[in-house]
Amino acid sequence: MNDDAFKYAERLVPRSYIDLARQARRSYEQQIRQIIEHRKLPEQPLDENIIEQWLNEIAQMDSNNFEGNIGVGEREGRIYSSLVARRHYLFSHGIGRSGDINAIQPKAAGSSLLNKLTNELVLDAIHILGLRTITHALVIPMATGMTMTLCLLTLKKQRPNSRYVLWSRIDQKSCFKSILAANLEPIIIEQIENNNYLQTNINEFEKQIKKLNQNEICCIISTTSCFAPRTIDNIQYISNLCQIYSIPHLINNAYGLQSTKIIHEIEQTKRSNGRIDYIVQSTDKNFLVPVGGSIVLTYDKELFDKLSHIYPGRASINPTIDIFITLLSMGKKGLIDLIQKRKNLFNIFYEKLLQWTKDNDECILSSKQFSPISIAISLKHISNEHLTELGSMLFTRRISGARVVKLGTKQTIDSYEFINYGAHSSNIQYSYLTVAAAIGIEENDIEIFMKKFDSIYQKLRRNENSDD
Amino acid sequence: MNDDAFKYAERLVPRSYIDLARQARRSYEQQIRQIIEHRKLPEQPLDENIIEQWLNEIAQMDSNNFEGNIGVGEREGRIYSSLVARRHYLFSHGIGRSGDINAIQPKAAGSSLLNKLTNELVLDAIHILGLRTITHALVIPMATGMTMTLCLLTLKKQRPNSRYVLWSRIDQKSCFKSILAANLEPIIIEQIENNNYLQTNINEFEKQIKKLNQNEICCIISTTSCFAPRTIDNIQYISNLCQIYSIPHLINNAYGLQSTKIIHEIEQTKRSNGRIDYIVQSTDKNFLVPVGGSIVLTYDKELFDKLSHIYPGRASINPTIDIFITLLSMGKKGLIDLIQKRKNLFNIFYEKLLQWTKDNDECILSSKQFSPISIAISLKHISNEHLTELGSMLFTRRISGARVVKLGTKQTIDSYEFINYGAHSSNIQYSYLTVAAAIGIEENDIEIFMKKFDSIYQKLRRNENSDD
Amino acid sequence: MNDDAFKYAERLVPRSYIDLARQARRSYEQQIRQIIEHRKLPEQPLDENIIEQWLNEIAQMDSNNFEGNIGVGEREGRIYSSLVARRHYLFSHGIGRSGDINAIQPKAAGSSLLNKLTNELVLDAIHILGLRTITHALVIPMATGMTMTLCLLTLKKQRPNSRYVLWSRIDQKSCFKSILAANLEPIIIEQIENNNYLQTNINEFEKQIKKLNQNEICCIISTTSCFAPRTIDNIQYISNLCQIYSIPHLINNAYGLQSTKIIHEIEQTKRSNGRIDYIVQSTDKNFLVPVGGSIVLTYDKELFDKLSHIYPGRASINPTIDIFITLLSMGKKGLIDLIQKRKNLFNIFYEKLLQWTKDNDECILSSKQFSPISIAISLKHISNEHLTELGSMLFTRRISGARVVKLGTKQTIDSYEFINYGAHSSNIQYSYLTVAAAIGIEENDIEIFMKKFDSIYQKLRRNENSDD
Amino acid sequence: MNDDAFKYAERLVPRSYIDLARQARRSYEQQIRQIIEHRKLPEQPLDENIIEQWLNEIAQMDSNNFEGNIGVGEREGRIYSSLVARRHYLFSHGIGRSGDINAIQPKAAGSSLLNKLTNELVLDAIHILGLRTITHALVIPMATGMTMTLCLLTLKKQRPNSRYVLWSRIDQKSCFKSILAANLEPIIIEQIENNNYLQTNINEFEKQIKKLNQNEICCIISTTSCFAPRTIDNIQYISNLCQIYSIPHLINNAYGLQSTKIIHEIEQTKRSNGRIDYIVQSTDKNFLVPVGGSIVLTYDKELFDKLSHIYPGRASINPTIDIFITLLSMGKKGLIDLIQKRKNLFNIFYEKLLQWTKDNDECILSSKQFSPISIAISLKHISNEHLTELGSMLFTRRISGARVVKLGTKQTIDSYEFINYGAHSSNIQYSYLTVAAAIGIEENDIEIFMKKFDSIYQKLRRNENSDD
Repeated sequence: MNDDAFKYAERLVPRSYIDLARQARRSYEQQIRQIIEHRKLPEQPLDENIIEQWLNEIAQMDSNNFEGNIGVGEREGRIYSSLVARRHYLFSHGIGRSGDINAIQPKAAGSSLLNKLTNELVLDAIHILGLRTITHALVIPMATGMTMTLCLLTLKKQRPNSRYVLWSRIDQKSCFKSILAANLEPIIIEQIENNNYLQTNINEFEKQIKKLNQNEICCIISTTSCFAPRTIDNIQYISNLCQIYSIPHLINNAYGLQSTKIIHEIEQTKRSNGRIDYIVQSTDKNFLVPVGGSIVLTYDKELFDKLSHIYPGRASINPTIDIFITLLSMGKKGLIDLIQKRKNLFNIFYEKLLQWTKDNDECILSSKQFSPISIAISLKHISNEHLTELGSMLFTRRISGARVVKLGTKQTIDSYEFINYGAHSSNIQYSYLTVAAAIGIEENDIEIFMKKFDSIYQKLRRNENSDD
Repeated sequence: MNDDAFKYAERLVPRSYIDLARQARRSYEQQIRQIIEHRKLPEQPLDENIIEQWLNEIAQMDSNNFEGNIGVGEREGRIYSSLVARRHYLFSHGIGRSGDINAIQPKAAGSSLLNKLTNELVLDAIHILGLRTITHALVIPMATGMTMTLCLLTLKKQRPNSRYVLWSRIDQKSCFKSILAANLEPIIIEQIENNNYLQTNINEFEKQIKKLNQNEICCIISTTSCFAPRTIDNIQYISNLCQIYSIPHLINNAYGLQSTKIIHEIEQTKRSNGRIDYIVQSTDKNFLVPVGGSIVLTYDKELFDKLSHIYPGRASINPTIDIFITLLSMGKKGLIDLIQKRKNLFNIFYEKLLQWTKDNDECILSSKQFSPISIAISLKHISNEHLTELGSMLFTRRISGARVVKLGTKQTIDSYEFINYGAHSSNIQYSYLTVAAAIGIEENDIEIFMKKFDSIYQKLRRNENSDD
Repeated sequence: MNDDAFKYAERLVPRSYIDLARQARRSYEQQIRQIIEHRKLPEQPLDENIIEQWLNEIAQMDSNNFEGNIGVGEREGRIYSSLVARRHYLFSHGIGRSGDINAIQPKAAGSSLLNKLTNELVLDAIHILGLRTITHALVIPMATGMTMTLCLLTLKKQRPNSRYVLWSRIDQKSCFKSILAANLEPIIIEQIENNNYLQTNINEFEKQIKKLNQNEICCIISTTSCFAPRTIDNIQYISNLCQIYSIPHLINNAYGLQSTKIIHEIEQTKRSNGRIDYIVQSTDKNFLVPVGGSIVLTYDKELFDKLSHIYPGRASINPTIDIFITLLSMGKKGLIDLIQKRKNLFNIFYEKLLQWTKDNDECILSSKQFSPISIAISLKHISNEHLTELGSMLFTRRISGARVVKLGTKQTIDSYEFINYGAHSSNIQYSYLTVAAAIGIEENDIEIFMKKFDSIYQKLRRNENSDD
Repeated sequence: MNDDAFKYAERLVPRSYIDLARQARRSYEQQIRQIIEHRKLPEQPLDENIIEQWLNEIAQMDSNNFEGNIGVGEREGRIYSSLVARRHYLFSHGIGRSGDINAIQPKAAGSSLLNKLTNELVLDAIHILGLRTITHALVIPMATGMTMTLCLLTLKKQRPNSRYVLWSRIDQKSCFKSILAANLEPIIIEQIENNNYLQTNINEFEKQIKKLNQNEICCIISTTSCFAPRTIDNIQYISNLCQIYSIPHLINNAYGLQSTKIIHEIEQTKRSNGRIDYIVQSTDKNFLVPVGGSIVLTYDKELFDKLSHIYPGRASINPTIDIFITLLSMGKKGLIDLIQKRKNLFNIFYEKLLQWTKDNDECILSSKQFSPISIAISLKHISNEHLTELGSMLFTRRISGARVVKLGTKQTIDSYEFINYGAHSSNIQYSYLTVAAAIGIEENDIEIFMKKFDSIYQKLRRNENSDD
């Protein structure tokens, strides 16, 4: 309804009431205008219906939704099913053009606008979270693993003679496989143990760089967010090496945006002039949307453009829509609250587990400081055969995400062999259980977990004894 | 409502009425059961509400939707916004696992089931469309360009010493860039002109194979669906070469599933023992869903598995959901009707344009037989400066998809230079306009296009004369 | 997005593309503006997403949807469930005020606007359907029966000494019961048979008026839409009587808007100066929305106001929303097409049944001219016990709406006894089956009905013979 | 998906994962089964998606949603617009039959089931709220005013010679007009003042009964929920009179279910053998759904049946759907919490206003005990002309629901004149402001109200002084 329509509405409803409505509408239009103008999250959450209406408006800027549009091309944004059309808010053209994932589509001004704006809002969210020096953010409609591969292909293109990736071992298959998918060769740097937890083997990194021709190294991959007992990689040191030896540095920050500690480490690294090329993180793990997108951050326009340009063809706008809705639903306030709440619950979870280990002659196998999201506890008193049972008992009691890691598990990925797979290191002392206080967790989850886990543990431990 | 619930319902509503409802419900349950059992499209379209309800049921098989589920991992399928949750039918876990895009997720039986089942339904749809010998279909949640890159990376992994891709020129940037993104080197084989249209330069292909070490050739890329005057590549000949010289063959069949002619060519090629490794097609261009997915077809389990395995990590389930909904909404009947309708409308469009060229001393620049989707017409009487105007006049009159190709356009992609970019060949005689009768087009679109285009053309042509 | 927002969008997407979007948006805003300005249906259907977006905009004019609204009353339009909120597009205040169902609510400018506008659009639809002289239309959120009662209460209020309603028998319980609910006394005027069908007993009407004190007659109720063999009441004659004797005339036109014949009869009646006070029709039966609303038409502002004023308190806006959506989804063109299609299908159905009666020695028991929606056929050769079976066999074979009427059925409503209930007359000769070609019926329905019915009929008729 | 479908799913996804899903599904099916079996609210809220899925299942029990249903009647539940169909979950047949609003529809087993079940769930909710002796609850798809009329028509039918309604004055137009709509004559019993608030004039009631022939009295209407300074009617006394003189008693309990005090009064009245025939309450005001429905409660099957039977024809199922969704969304726990929260906020609001009156030399004009929802405060220091301004200033500052009542307002409804309309009494001493802490109010609303109101008040009061 434009101003004229409002005027004619006054013939049906008295002007004073229409005026109040007009004023209410204006205040919502102001909010929208401000978001487009300043490209910053609103302070407070936006109502769902406002977000939805705005999305509909933006979608109507795409040619497939123009009244009377005639399509004689091969890709006209037609949608067969109205269910599908609805769930995509009539967005059909995706993002990007053949040349660039961040390019404008002439046919799809709305999709292009949504894409550009969302990248800017994500950048603002990143700043709010504490990475204040980041200058570019790009939502990529592929999950972190494949996006890591894309970053590696981009780096490789700049270093055509390189073959190797120095990789600080992290037992997430997708991170390791992202190297293989790019047809690069991983050099695995094992974690070393320190005081019950694992940390980056910094000496080995330097040794490997010196051993290999540094031009043959495509990049170093460090990982910040990981499961205890592994800790945040020593990215300050690694990025220093990268700086000194002119080797690109790719940070696998999969779910690190939710941790103020990890954010702080990255920010410090940058401020102390360490080299960071790309930082990759998941949209689902950090912003509570369905799996399917990731965010690449850089400090450099050229790196940003190179990544955009390498992407061949169009891509889904879906993760962009999800992030757009979610960030506006949170507002700055909601985002900060969520982060704070997670931190508090991590502390609560840690204290509960610490007490539990004391009560049961087990021990915490992680650094509270350097594993700010997950916590590992030893399972000394449970034998290997019962460990499998423990895992499956948790699963059938609807506990998801708790991982039992058994000493001695072997795994081969392509031709690469790993000892103690899952534990990030060949040298660990105990089998253990690892759990996380990730964003979105509720205190109730922690309480029920403690109860259910303890009951299973006690039962199995009693069995151990009776087995004797 | 289970059987018990129905029984208790009889206390509120007489049994005979409940019985009729029970029977109706059973007939819909049978349909669902049959689809899961036989993994074939239903003959007739399924109602939207049945599809939606089924999707909801499947989503409830994922652990994040279990009542009382406790998540203590880092990725628990939590969704912040209820808008986002709704539009994804509560699916949150994506598809695949770290190791394989087609692997089962223990946490997400529903997503896994949907993924497996949809791949099977797509395979059935492919059979219905005429590719009866295909044995494996995989929906990939990336558009065709990036999926081509993934196929290239997979092939390259098997042929670690290869560097080159023999590429039959097609002026779609995303196809060309998919080679560059994989860090491979394209060898461009220009189209040759024949009788006003362009065709595969088969001699040059053989020449290049002989010139290069065949082990250094990663694969040949042929393209079937393209804009006139370029025609379907001579894939029978190319696949023969691939067979003889043991070179992988990747077919860029972006929007070729909609053409019975193209389908026929591929099927014939396979039946005559030509080599085809992967066939890549878009979900949006063939099945009328939003941009974001593609389908890879193979005739070989090993190739299928290799492709699944190379994908690092999880991926979006979105294109899978869209295809699932769309195929069930169509049913076998709807799919066949759609294809038949397109074919008829192509013939109508061709006849109209043929008549128009006769009336205006222009000519058709395409083979009706070998360009079964698009049609090119010469624009001899419009000068270059007016050609630009023509394009923009069409655009502002809401004609989308019609392309004006001007003689002499140059384009550089990375370090590669193209003459007459857009025309697929350095040697064309006329500037021209190309349009398509793609799936989903309506007769009305063709009529309005003819009227609007003719009016613009006549106006510009008069201007030409008056400019003299 | 207001003009400023569009301007800022130009910083993200080039102006020329934004301009095209702006233009597309403007054309949709014009449509909306025109509908509010002229209060007429659009010529062509409006897209669902446009309708939905408009509804959302209107709802935001209600105070419960204002940002920062503070409610300290007892009725603040709060909605507990977001599912409920969504399905009502956030409309919560209903329509009307304590004093008048058509009054403006200061708190709810949007609801009030929607109500006023929809009543105007309904009036336009009524004019399009052929009732060109109607001046007032009111959507009432109660189905026809209860709305008839409301009309009767309104008339009774004007005629406080009246007690009787002269009622041309129609065997729809809700029509008869609407009299009883108003605590008035029905005088039943039986139909008379003429040439195999039933028609208004006009002599009896006049006789009764003369017999009773005319001031004691609250009104006459005639019925236009009914099941054959009953025909449209002779409303020209009845309204003449009403004019002469100053008795209000209430027309039960439940599903008559779909018939051009019935429309014509009413229009003729009015043009020949017959008296018609209120015409009541169903929203669901005429406009294909769910049960729950009705439309009252009058030719007189005072009668319209009296009806509005009698309604005590607020009422649901739901039927208004449904009608608003439906009329805009149809557009003028869609509405006319629907009516025309029904007429054609009625003729087809009639011809098929006529042929069938000839083939089976049965006969048509209705006037093609005066029963323009339904058709009755004799069931001479089926005995009474088998008639019941016939009905239930149709039902279990998912034929709904076909009615088997058995000679001799008795029914008592309150203290009133009816012979041959269902047949509208004490004097009919045969048991029969009656079916309708109502709005929304498809040719396919007719074909399948003929097949299924014939098969059941033949089976039962064979049984008759074998029973002998 | 039935059991067979699950079995075939095991061919696609390992059995152990399917088993977990099966188990999760079973636990949700149990919940549904229990609700149907016991017809009681679940203890805990049900998830929205479970509710929605269940609604879809129930809707599929209606014949219009049967696959292959053939409709040859005049009312086949067809829906033109898919938007409309969706928002009604495909329910189209409404509730009731011609004869009875609570009757089963053979065509619509699902709608019938939903109707019956919802009435039972409402009854359970009523018991939870404290009216434990109520035996029948009926959701009527009309708002309270019209439903009061329906009750009056039902009572009048049983007492054909009655003409009067004894009515304890309450200045809600819809209550008064419900009497006029039923063509009955109100006898107005003014409130009397007592200690700054108003209460039932019990002597006048008895006087009027004695004065009139008691058979001419159709019923007495008392009101429980009202705006201060009026208090809950003395229903114990009134129902006693009704018992003694055999006069029906209709309680207007519009928004009384939210108050434990009002509930207690009704329960006590019943337990002390007072006569209560029907209790009418709004669905929107008590259960936070959109306007459009009401609930009638009785203690007597015959009264319940009479009310059901009088309703002529079908009716909307909408309020039933809304209540069904809302009650399941609340669960028993949510409902109790809501009531408790309201009570607490009322106390907070009262204390704040009390303090405010002390600070400003105004006074509370209501009984905390007998006006348990709303509070009135004097506005001694604001002159009449400024009072109007106060109201409109509140309105434009988005305070809704606060009512300014000016001494001396006159109002005529039909031929009845009221002095001090809005104040429920001819004799009040001050103009005043009345506000409510109704269900759904938030503490934040109270705080912002206090701030905004005080600021307006002070400004106007300063103006008063400067006017001098």
